[in-house]
Amino acid sequence: MATIFDIGVSAGFNVLTAIAFLLAFAFLRLQPINDRVYFPKWYLRGMRDSPISSGAAVNKFVNLDARSYLKFLNWMPAALKMPQDELINHAGLDSVVYLRIYLTGLKIFVPITVLAFLVLVPVNWTNDTLERMNVVHADIDKLSISNVPNGSKRFIAHLAMAYAITFWTCYVLMREYEIIAKLRLRFLASEKRRPDQFTVLVRNIPPDPDESTSELVEHFFLVNHPDHYLRHQVVYNANKLSDFVEKKKKMQNWLDYYRLKYERNVSQRPTTKTGFLGCFGSTVDAIDYYKSEIEKIGKEEAEERKKVMKDPKSVVPSAFVSFRSRWGAAVCAQTQQTSNPTVWLTEWAPEPRDVYWNNLSIPFVSLTVRRLIVAVAFFFLNFFYIIPITLVQSLANLEGIEKALPFLKPLIELPFIKSFIQGFLPGIVLKIFLIVLPSILMFMSKFEGLISQSSLERRSAAKYYIFLFFNVFLGSVVAGSALEQLKIYLHTSANDIPRIIGDSIPMKATFFITYVMVDGWAGVAGEILRPVALVIFHLKNFFLVKTEKDREEAMDPGSICFNINEPRIQLYFLLGLVYAAVTPFLLPFILVFFGFAYVVYRHQIINVYNQQYESAGQFWPSVHGRVITALIISQLLLLGLMSTNDFAQSTPVLLVLPVLTFWFYKYCKHRYEPAFVRNPLQEAMRKDTLERAREPNFDLKAYLANAYLHPVFKGGEHEDDRYSVLDDEAWMGEEVIVPTKRQSRRTTPAQSRQDGGGSDTVSVPETLHEHRPI
Amino acid sequence: MATIFDIGVSAGFNVLTAIAFLLAFAFLRLQPINDRVYFPKWYLRGMRDSPISSGAAVNKFVNLDARSYLKFLNWMPAALKMPQDELINHAGLDSVVYLRIYLTGLKIFVPITVLAFLVLVPVNWTNDTLERMNVVHADIDKLSISNVPNGSKRFIAHLAMAYAITFWTCYVLMREYEIIAKLRLRFLASEKRRPDQFTVLVRNIPPDPDESTSELVEHFFLVNHPDHYLRHQVVYNANKLSDFVEKKKKMQNWLDYYRLKYERNVSQRPTTKTGFLGCFGSTVDAIDYYKSEIEKIGKEEAEERKKVMKDPKSVVPSAFVSFRSRWGAAVCAQTQQTSNPTVWLTEWAPEPRDVYWNNLSIPFVSLTVRRLIVAVAFFFLNFFYIIPITLVQSLANLEGIEKALPFLKPLIELPFIKSFIQGFLPGIVLKIFLIVLPSILMFMSKFEGLISQSSLERRSAAKYYIFLFFNVFLGSVVAGSALEQLKIYLHTSANDIPRIIGDSIPMKATFFITYVMVDGWAGVAGEILRPVALVIFHLKNFFLVKTEKDREEAMDPGSICFNINEPRIQLYFLLGLVYAAVTPFLLPFILVFFGFAYVVYRHQIINVYNQQYESAGQFWPSVHGRVITALIISQLLLLGLMSTNDFAQSTPVLLVLPVLTFWFYKYCKHRYEPAFVRNPLQEAMRKDTLERAREPNFDLKAYLANAYLHPVFKGGEHEDDRYSVLDDEAWMGEEVIVPTKRQSRRTTPAQSRQDGGGSDTVSVPETLHEHRPI
Repeated sequence: MATIFDIGVSAGFNVLTAIAFLLAFAFLRLQPINDRVYFPKWYLRGMRDSPISSGAAVNKFVNLDARSYLKFLNWMPAALKMPQDELINHAGLDSVVYLRIYLTGLKIFVPITVLAFLVLVPVNWTNDTLERMNVVHADIDKLSISNVPNGSKRFIAHLAMAYAITFWTCYVLMREYEIIAKLRLRFLASEKRRPDQFTVLVRNIPPDPDESTSELVEHFFLVNHPDHYLRHQVVYNANKLSDFVEKKKKMQNWLDYYRLKYERNVSQRPTTKTGFLGCFGSTVDAIDYYKSEIEKIGKEEAEERKKVMKDPKSVVPSAFVSFRSRWGAAVCAQTQQTSNPTVWLTEWAPEPRDVYWNNLSIPFVSLTVRRLIVAVAFFFLNFFYIIPITLVQSLANLEGIEKALPFLKPLIELPFIKSFIQGFLPGIVLKIFLIVLPSILMFMSKFEGLISQSSLERRSAAKYYIFLFFNVFLGSVVAGSALEQLKIYLHTSANDIPRIIGDSIPMKATFFITYVMVDGWAGVAGEILRPVALVIFHLKNFFLVKTEKDREEAMDPGSICFNINEPRIQLYFLLGLVYAAVTPFLLPFILVFFGFAYVVYRHQIINVYNQQYESAGQFWPSVHGRVITALIISQLLLLGLMSTNDFAQSTPVLLVLPVLTFWFYKYCKHRYEPAFVRNPLQEAMRKDTLERAREPNFDLKAYLANAYLHPVFKGGEHEDDRYSVLDDEAWMGEEVIVPTKRQSRRTTPAQSRQDGGGSDTVSVPETLHEHRPI
Repeated sequence: MATIFDIGVSAGFNVLTAIAFLLAFAFLRLQPINDRVYFPKWYLRGMRDSPISSGAAVNKFVNLDARSYLKFLNWMPAALKMPQDELINHAGLDSVVYLRIYLTGLKIFVPITVLAFLVLVPVNWTNDTLERMNVVHADIDKLSISNVPNGSKRFIAHLAMAYAITFWTCYVLMREYEIIAKLRLRFLASEKRRPDQFTVLVRNIPPDPDESTSELVEHFFLVNHPDHYLRHQVVYNANKLSDFVEKKKKMQNWLDYYRLKYERNVSQRPTTKTGFLGCFGSTVDAIDYYKSEIEKIGKEEAEERKKVMKDPKSVVPSAFVSFRSRWGAAVCAQTQQTSNPTVWLTEWAPEPRDVYWNNLSIPFVSLTVRRLIVAVAFFFLNFFYIIPITLVQSLANLEGIEKALPFLKPLIELPFIKSFIQGFLPGIVLKIFLIVLPSILMFMSKFEGLISQSSLERRSAAKYYIFLFFNVFLGSVVAGSALEQLKIYLHTSANDIPRIIGDSIPMKATFFITYVMVDGWAGVAGEILRPVALVIFHLKNFFLVKTEKDREEAMDPGSICFNINEPRIQLYFLLGLVYAAVTPFLLPFILVFFGFAYVVYRHQIINVYNQQYESAGQFWPSVHGRVITALIISQLLLLGLMSTNDFAQSTPVLLVLPVLTFWFYKYCKHRYEPAFVRNPLQEAMRKDTLERAREPNFDLKAYLANAYLHPVFKGGEHEDDRYSVLDDEAWMGEEVIVPTKRQSRRTTPAQSRQDGGGSDTVSVPETLHEHRPI
């Protein structure tokens, strides 16, 4: 039970931390040497040059202009100045839609805060329940619902407030959904020609004894989409090859490092050890060693590359099929191809840079099994993660360390270090787990078999939100690990669960206020400072960078990290909605978070982040869905809270809200979600028609030629020669004869019975093709 | 606690009832006068003539051949004889798939029964728990799980049995799904040309200020499906008109009735009263009165017909759009047309006879609101229906009747009648409710806005199943109305609900055995007798029938009534799966039901029922889903039962089953359901190609001309003259110029901003159409 003074101290401390971060940022960003850490986006867009290449020597590294330090907050208005349309051009729609999450937070919570302070604070304050009850309480508890006597008629104000919150939130959400759907459609409509507009990803191509995958794809689409099929690109299983490429690159880095070292100190040739991490094994000359290693790997790589290109087994049963028009691609992506729904699965191809290549070859049955495994694994991770953590914590105590590493004993026995270890080690184990958690969730999503980076991030975000909800929100409210909660949920009636949770909601307000300040305020300020990126850049700069190109590569602009950041924002939505009718005092803290984070992320998006893909805001439906979830949870918890306050008459009145909210969710899903999933034919046709009128002679086939080649094949020297042969044929002509290898079957009258339609596909129409012009 | 003797008596009684029904049926069906009641299907197929038109006078009505009475069961082998393929031709795929539900029941439960009797009965029987506990128990309880002592290792047998049941059921279900999917695909592939193969239903056509709905549809599809669009049929709001037609028909019936009466007794002209039900009002000459009434309605009808055809307001914003090829229709049905997903909604057109015309004009927002209303209403119906029933029951007591109808008092006061009313009236009120319940559910589904009879029946079946599950199954087990159950569910923990229900499962075995015999055995035998249809046919035959055509109309073959019968079968699946591991003694009774019902319904389908539509087994996914639901429920209840028997170690072992079963459900949904929902392009293309090769000059446009006209317009005399104009244009030619009324906008450079794409549709490509040949 913190007093307002306690909160004030905590707030002061966090504000000071945030200001310290901001000052450090203001100082560091003005140093030219950090320019690539704080403005990489502009370098990537080619609109900024290295300051090192021009000007005086000192000015290259340190900013000596004293005046520029005075205005340490002047990045803020600059960040807000760029208009939305320009920002879409600059950073893509994903970033803009991501920023709108913060804006939505502001739009929802500013009026709610005002209303809550006008209505609920006086209603709560003018009671004396807490004083009469003589419970230990803080001033801020007088502002909360706990101060209203049980069964009081004043609860009607809270009920009305719950209705106001629900309707206002739904209204804002709907408006936002509408705006973003329009933004997305306008963005898609105004986009230039892009390979993915014409391309469909076909998965689970059935094996065929007579034809190669490539021939099969060609025949299938020539028969079933005769007027629209243009070309296709088979997918190679180049996972091993890209491992080689990766390894070679790492070796090259080491070679560069040792060369640089040698240059700086010519007297001594650097040495390294051949074993693990360069720590064990025999000592060798480093430069020679890495040179020979690179040569070896280079050979292996070339061999693997040859093998992949020649061996039909390295072609996975997936292909990128391109069409003559967007209309044809839209049709193919949205329809089912054969009567067996597990083969010839078509979907929109992701952008080439968005494709997650490793998952393209997973067959259908395996996919469903993987989904089951991940679901079960995630359930255990969510509810039982505390068990291994406790285990590790119990092992990672002083005695354990002393036994494992006895030479550390004298050091550990020092009283200061001893208490430090005992106090922090368990916390650090947990912290490490929480830091690697997003990577674990991302690994799970990858294992599930999703085929684009964007969908991987969306799926991971959903998992992370569930984890945060149970382990951070409910874990703090019910004060127990998710495992203990699970027991409560199983052993408590459906009626009592919201009551138990709702009852402890008001008491946790101060905890969450502190949480918002530490995680929200200071955390966001830390984001703008980018300490990790700063350190890594300078390390790389010192050890590896020789040329301008190296410096370019050392730069790590990062990205929004939707899978980590969005679920965290959702936690603030949840806190705001839950506490709006209970302890309105929490709302201003959340408002500050949304406002501050909006400015910071806008700045980062303009100056730093470089998105790896563009999904045109495809994640909005899940953002929307999670805010709705938070709203429904807040309604249920208020219901529980009211029923403990002897105001059970409210139950039917409040029960209407979740029903209406759920209906609203369904309505929005039907109304807006298709715009984020499917591609309308009208739009496709309009674009096709306009384009055909503008550029009637555009060579689409050449344009699409290498768009969906695996990245390791790109670079020119290893062109796929089989496709150059195919290119020579007169594809664009109308009179296409389907070549087939099934000569022997022409005399067989019965159709082949093979399932999956692979052979049936061609065997019927091939005769027709011979007898009549299409 | 019934003994085996009690059950034997009950079984004997029910078997006797069933045999009595069968004997009555055997006798009645042999009478030529009943021929149209028991063999209408053959009349409808034109393969049987009225026996009345030939032979001796007596033979027309009564069968005098004594030998034919001896073989009173000889319809059974006859019913089983017809092979499946012939049955598909005779009665359609829906009927065959419906029969497979019973077959599936047999396939699931025959091996389970054998296994249960081999394994569980000895395990249960060789204990003496019940005897030692000195509880009152029956012999059959010794066969049930109650006889195994708490915590006994013998429960392992039950666990193993649960696993065996799960895997066997899933295996049978998957096989069945596969078979039925194949049947469906083969059926669709072998079907003759049908209008719905080429037609798509378009709903929510946005209003347009410049063009009529018909013109708008034409433009939209000429622009967006230029190579495939053929013609369209707008939908008229003819609900009022069909009311008139209906009324006229009823009047005609009365006229016929009085004419017949007059013919039989020429001395006296029949009279009627003009008021309500012919009971009140002034007396008039009946024949003249109805003649004039018919004339009046005929005039009104003609006027309404004219109005509907001329008034653009009577055109609802829906249309049936036909394409040149199945491929074109398949594409249009599966894709989204515009960026606004609430307009231009396309889906496969139902068969013309399957269309539910009244719902075609409901707009999108209204649909979602209606769905909410129905969901809430159904929730209340399901859990609170007992309240109005109790209310009516309390009103419909003796005093109430005496007050309302005082002249009945002396009659009611008779002791016999008094006790009869007091004993039966409350039961009758409930029974009446249960009889009208399917109609209420059907009304709800209609209100929801579904657009085909088949989907209406499927939706009603889902609702009915939920009702039966809560009010019959759980109502009998937990022994309380659904309302009381709701309280239990809300106030009991998630852990305890299966425990409470599971605990009382074994005790209810005898009750459900009786239920199976009464509802299953006797009920099915009653179905074959068709008493209601028999009575109504003879009443109509006596009062209305003059000509052979009248007799044809008096015949009511009925149909399967999927919405009523399927949920009832599902109850037997549920009972069988729940009791398989608990009281295997129940299983033989269920087996008898499935076997007997299979024969009876096969007979009825061959000889009686006339399906109103053909959905090609589209209902199977929901049948499959409900059996899976029953399986999961049975697993959860066994889990609860085990935990009360001190065998809690079993919980994790049993918890695996629902997870696996649910995963199996998801797998099947992905694997097989698309075959029941979407239409693969490959199949469409293959059929198109074959057909084009066989009949290159077929006039598809003429074939489709009136396929989707509202039934009241059919009959020739009231042909839609606007369409004959359209027909004259040279549609089949390739060079289509899109006519438009938007002359004024051609000079406007900016696109119109109107939402929904209505005007955008044409305004961009119209200029293109003028400048270049497509």
